[in-house]
Amino acid sequence: MTVIRVWAPYAKEVQVILDGTSYPMLSTRHGWWMLDSPLAGHGSDYAFVLDGSGPLPDPRSPWQPYGVHGFSRMLDHSLFSWTDDRWQAPPLSSAVIYELHTGTFSPQGTFQGVAQKLDHLVDLGITHIELMPVNSFSGTHGWGYDGVGLFAPHEPYGGPAGLKELVDECHARGIAVILDVVYNHLGPEGNYLDRFGPYFTNRYSSPWGNAVNLDGPGSDEVRRFFIENALMWLKDYHMDVLRLDAVHAIIDTSSVHFLEELSQEVEMLQARTGRHLALIAESNLNNPRIVQPREIGGYGIDAQWNDDFHHALHTVLTGEKNGYYGDFGTLSDLAQAMEEIFVYSGRYSAFRGRKHGRPVRGVSGNKFLAYLQNHDQIGNRARGERLNHLVDTGRFMLGSALVFASACIPMIFQGEEWAASSPFQYFTDHQDEELGKAVVTGRREEFAAFGWDPGDIPDPQDPATFERSKPLWEELEHEPHTSVLAWYKGLIRLRRELPVLKDGSLSQILISYHEEEQWLAMNRGPVMVVCNFSRHSRRIGIYDGQKREVLLTSRSGVVYREDSITLPGETAAILLQS
Amino acid sequence: MTVIRVWAPYAKEVQVILDGTSYPMLSTRHGWWMLDSPLAGHGSDYAFVLDGSGPLPDPRSPWQPYGVHGFSRMLDHSLFSWTDDRWQAPPLSSAVIYELHTGTFSPQGTFQGVAQKLDHLVDLGITHIELMPVNSFSGTHGWGYDGVGLFAPHEPYGGPAGLKELVDECHARGIAVILDVVYNHLGPEGNYLDRFGPYFTNRYSSPWGNAVNLDGPGSDEVRRFFIENALMWLKDYHMDVLRLDAVHAIIDTSSVHFLEELSQEVEMLQARTGRHLALIAESNLNNPRIVQPREIGGYGIDAQWNDDFHHALHTVLTGEKNGYYGDFGTLSDLAQAMEEIFVYSGRYSAFRGRKHGRPVRGVSGNKFLAYLQNHDQIGNRARGERLNHLVDTGRFMLGSALVFASACIPMIFQGEEWAASSPFQYFTDHQDEELGKAVVTGRREEFAAFGWDPGDIPDPQDPATFERSKPLWEELEHEPHTSVLAWYKGLIRLRRELPVLKDGSLSQILISYHEEEQWLAMNRGPVMVVCNFSRHSRRIGIYDGQKREVLLTSRSGVVYREDSITLPGETAAILLQS
Repeated sequence: MTVIRVWAPYAKEVQVILDGTSYPMLSTRHGWWMLDSPLAGHGSDYAFVLDGSGPLPDPRSPWQPYGVHGFSRMLDHSLFSWTDDRWQAPPLSSAVIYELHTGTFSPQGTFQGVAQKLDHLVDLGITHIELMPVNSFSGTHGWGYDGVGLFAPHEPYGGPAGLKELVDECHARGIAVILDVVYNHLGPEGNYLDRFGPYFTNRYSSPWGNAVNLDGPGSDEVRRFFIENALMWLKDYHMDVLRLDAVHAIIDTSSVHFLEELSQEVEMLQARTGRHLALIAESNLNNPRIVQPREIGGYGIDAQWNDDFHHALHTVLTGEKNGYYGDFGTLSDLAQAMEEIFVYSGRYSAFRGRKHGRPVRGVSGNKFLAYLQNHDQIGNRARGERLNHLVDTGRFMLGSALVFASACIPMIFQGEEWAASSPFQYFTDHQDEELGKAVVTGRREEFAAFGWDPGDIPDPQDPATFERSKPLWEELEHEPHTSVLAWYKGLIRLRRELPVLKDGSLSQILISYHEEEQWLAMNRGPVMVVCNFSRHSRRIGIYDGQKREVLLTSRSGVVYREDSITLPGETAAILLQS
Repeated sequence: MTVIRVWAPYAKEVQVILDGTSYPMLSTRHGWWMLDSPLAGHGSDYAFVLDGSGPLPDPRSPWQPYGVHGFSRMLDHSLFSWTDDRWQAPPLSSAVIYELHTGTFSPQGTFQGVAQKLDHLVDLGITHIELMPVNSFSGTHGWGYDGVGLFAPHEPYGGPAGLKELVDECHARGIAVILDVVYNHLGPEGNYLDRFGPYFTNRYSSPWGNAVNLDGPGSDEVRRFFIENALMWLKDYHMDVLRLDAVHAIIDTSSVHFLEELSQEVEMLQARTGRHLALIAESNLNNPRIVQPREIGGYGIDAQWNDDFHHALHTVLTGEKNGYYGDFGTLSDLAQAMEEIFVYSGRYSAFRGRKHGRPVRGVSGNKFLAYLQNHDQIGNRARGERLNHLVDTGRFMLGSALVFASACIPMIFQGEEWAASSPFQYFTDHQDEELGKAVVTGRREEFAAFGWDPGDIPDPQDPATFERSKPLWEELEHEPHTSVLAWYKGLIRLRRELPVLKDGSLSQILISYHEEEQWLAMNRGPVMVVCNFSRHSRRIGIYDGQKREVLLTSRSGVVYREDSITLPGETAAILLQS
């Protein structure tokens, strides 16, 4: 006997079509409809008809074998045989995160394809992979942020079973799994939620249209929809961590913010199961409240992305000044990001046209992620260029030293570890022709404002754009990729072996820099990182009487004496007190 | 030499018309325009022309002698001779607040008229008057929430000089002044702000249209506009407290909430001047964050209105079930409001269609206001009926006992102290004919939904509606008004004389009630308040062995014995341990 349930508070009449036959559902409390059916079970196809309109897929469908517009399929999670009983995820403080996109990471573009690359990731020293959204979205390939079947793993990736197998395999290999989930909007195609209930509100707008209704009439169930989605990934798919997309676009003025409620629910699940669970937010608010404990008015999220660190480092490396990069560009900004997390902690931002942020005080660096690249910073460029397409390999390697020596949790993006030659471009596979055209036109217009010729902007709907974004694994065998990989392995090993690099302590960090000479030296307890951003050799004086050994250098030619270190142009060195 | 300044970041050219002559202004930083003029000074009339369009009144005009559309007039605040050097406002914890509307409170409808009634208020025992908004709004009379000249006291009330004289006189008589300020929207008529700059945003909506832009591009100056408005009232008009209208409609997702910034600025002014300054918020969020200290993530507002207390008490007294009153109605709700402040502290609200609020923990009752009536609860009714028009005088008096015995700061509304026979209706004086008609139609349609006949709804634009809302002071000489006044004086005296009533301690409160028998007894340390809401005499057992004396009863016939108190129907008694 299986109970079919759906929340449809607007409907006067709801039918479920089950394996081809229509059955009336029973209205119960608070807009929920139910049917106890002896015919339904794992594998049954079903859909709902609301007041004669439909069939519509289940908003909480666990499986969409026919795509986002098609029938839903029932799924019995208990049928999967997990082998990870003794798995315990490492704490975020010791994490090295690897962000990847299932559709492009492997040649197959599936969960199984990802699993086949785990040797590489284990060898690299990764502790966590972060999967870009795997919820069901329209078409075959896409970034995943246009998800509409939030409870159903994308069928072309391998569906529910494929995802479970991947997570189980990761755990067997000692790798934790982070899943990217999108709770700030739903995709434009295949989104039937507003037919069912008040999932959206026009009281607030988001960059993607109407905002999700988290504080208006009917919002209790909308909040449960997202919270139970989060709990499902953690419970039924054994995810270790969720990464919450763009929480700044989650508008909730009620007395318990959605993020606070979510973090409390995850903490309760953690307490019940004894597993290490965590939440990571993407936030551009520069508001420490996100990661502060609930007891002092925070939302209790475990960590958040820190774009300020990225922008400060990226602009120093590239000299770029476009858009938000105009707010950054000095070593002083970079030093502030390393020492204080937010560069904008109350300062006027020309890009935002207002003062932005507030200081992080008394919060560990382990509450923030540092990265040289991520899917957005690459893929939201006109042509999806990686950093190593913009600067020399040496200069690119220099940047990564600061990521791994920072007080924050380091994250890299697929292929970064070998300076992949492939771009990561914006690609979509919208089935609605009008929408597909609008996406192409919109993107070309967006970049025309920055002086781009439309013809130079890859067409997101063109399958070649997707194909082009797959890393070329064969290049791993060749220079300079082999050297870059060795450098990343060295940095990750250092982080694993030196506890001070993982203690998150910001107060231990002491930075010297010289804007004109373009060098920066950071002391973190016994560790010293020296970076020469200029193209010229620099001799940097060290006058503290400490003896040090050179642990790693991004290229040869570094000369260390007791009172100075001389670095060739565009070189980083990491030293340890001996 | 006077400096004329205006923020007009959109304009390419700004002129000021000064006493009839036009002068070009100089563009300075961040969209500010300036002119140093030897001709300008106190009393000079001026207006701005932006890119040839105007003349427009100054957004920060200190004086609008010709109404909201007319020229602004310069004002030198230093010319007023204050006599309140030694004034220090009493703390909010000992406050008894009297809300009044300048246009109707006295026959004259002016600040001077209010001053002439101070004898009455002193005699009553009031510590603070709260003036409904006195900013400039369109027309002669209105509630004031449609203000557009936020820095200019309404000319028909007596303008800037009249307001200062009133405040000075209040201070001379030992009365502190609270001013109601509206920072969530501007009125629909005479609002030229969006011609000057990005004061509004369409990213959020408010019940009154576009929301104020507190977190988008250009919002720094918009925030300063409101914050400097608040500081002006405190500094230049010697206001003691500001009451912030409907803060739930102030949407700000930036990392420092507008209310937090405002409370910090007021605290700094307090520190500089040594004066007791405070902020009171109207909030329907049931979120303790509003009044929690900034150190633990709160906004640091000193106190907030508590509508839950009002609704719980009002419904028990009237049996009304319309609209939001449907969420209340039991003695259990009333007891919760007395003991825990919020009735909705996470419970499902049928009116809101969602769970609402969070518990108040570790916050003093003195952070909340309790009231039997206020301008909204009277005036937003179809016909503006006061509570004493809905229930017998005795039942009305019963209700006020709980207001003054509560752990919260008591507030009454003009005329309440004598159960005035006059209503307080919704009145406007919009000059724009279309707008005037829309207000009338809108109000009639709103109440038609509750079954009202349009003809029974007073016309807000009809001057008679305004006149009808003036209390009839002569009725003070007659019964039952004289007795009601004596009862209020008694309650206020008790609050003054018994420190326990002002300690704000919620943990001291112990309430018994009986839903069927309709009585409620509250112990607050040595004080006991017993209320019989039924129409029948009730004998209520008291079994704690304490000896008590009866301090006050709302009518005669109360019989107290050591182990019981017998109250006639609809009667309250206040007892003290002897």
